[in-house]
Amino acid sequence: MRNFAPMSIQQYPSRLLERAVSEFAKLPGIGRKTALRLVLQQLRREPEAVHAFAQSLTDLIDDVKYCHVCHNISDTDTCDICANPQRDATTICVVENVQNVLAMEQTGQYHGLYHVLGGVISPMDGIGPQQLEIDSLIARVSKGQVKEIIFALNPTIEGDTTNFYITRRLTDFPNLRLTQLSRGVCVGDDLEYTDEVTLGRSLLDRVDLRQ
Amino acid sequence: MRNFAPMSIQQYPSRLLERAVSEFAKLPGIGRKTALRLVLQQLRREPEAVHAFAQSLTDLIDDVKYCHVCHNISDTDTCDICANPQRDATTICVVENVQNVLAMEQTGQYHGLYHVLGGVISPMDGIGPQQLEIDSLIARVSKGQVKEIIFALNPTIEGDTTNFYITRRLTDFPNLRLTQLSRGVCVGDDLEYTDEVTLGRSLLDRVDLRQ
Repeated sequence: MRNFAPMSIQQYPSRLLERAVSEFAKLPGIGRKTALRLVLQQLRREPEAVHAFAQSLTDLIDDVKYCHVCHNISDTDTCDICANPQRDATTICVVENVQNVLAMEQTGQYHGLYHVLGGVISPMDGIGPQQLEIDSLIARVSKGQVKEIIFALNPTIEGDTTNFYITRRLTDFPNLRLTQLSRGVCVGDDLEYTDEVTLGRSLLDRVDLRQ
Repeated sequence: MRNFAPMSIQQYPSRLLERAVSEFAKLPGIGRKTALRLVLQQLRREPEAVHAFAQSLTDLIDDVKYCHVCHNISDTDTCDICANPQRDATTICVVENVQNVLAMEQTGQYHGLYHVLGGVISPMDGIGPQQLEIDSLIARVSKGQVKEIIFALNPTIEGDTTNFYITRRLTDFPNLRLTQLSRGVCVGDDLEYTDEVTLGRSLLDRVDLRQ
């Protein structure tokens, strides 16, 4: 029997297919098998639908803007939140990224403005204060209208470091209220499965029931 | 305190962002949260890279061909496997889809040709024999060169039904050898965790060690 070398996993029957699979496999968390499945699903769609998919990507990358005030993603120079006169311009919520703006908005509890840092200080990843939108935050505060900054960064070492750094940068504004989201047990969670650091923190930060 | 309606999960700060997220969320197994993560990752890439991603999709959908012999995806009218004179043209392996061609090729054990049905008979999904490339398989066999058909469909009810249907269609070719992949315990698997149907089948289909 003749000997045939097996096709490697990269050797697809079509170079067009291979190129599309390679591009999909660059998506985070998508391996080559999943990429192939996604690409073959595209082949079963109407050509117009796939064109619309591709067009949405190029339109986004070519035309997306970032709000010049809060640095959130926007279609305009000033985003809808910053441009909304109904929002409370005396409060700024400092968040890491766009997803966190969405998360805060979904609470329905916040009606101030935002400031998207674009990350948190993380020397391990080579991200220092200069890479983040911290100077522009100080500039916004310097205009004098802001009364409170709410830090809504992730409760991690990097988030806390960033809180600490920005707090230090704001020592020139003694009347500015600086707050951060409370930490404690999750609503609906079971104490048995709450990690001990969180539980300990919720004990220290306990809230009076009778005030 | 004024009452603010929460942004729904669809209300992204940018319509361009929303459109891209909606397109990504159409991918199988990708929800809106994952879609947002994938889209935001695109925004962190070089614009050229995102354009290449989009272009690979449109090129694929516009230019992909299917081999006119075996119906596998191809860049040319006849795919590389069908056009290869080294391959054994007397044997045809019947598979459901492109992924299964790749799986067979990776064994390195097969050097015949393929026939991609494009699915299996599944009345529940409205797929009958007319939707599959069965007539063209009979036509290939009718040319007289083929000596064996190997059925390599998934070992499911639908796969077995399709095997049975095609076998019936081939009764006019009594000298044609019809085979299917053996079924039994997986190599390296543990009998304790093999399902009873497979184990029973592997008992019935047991192979003589001394021949």
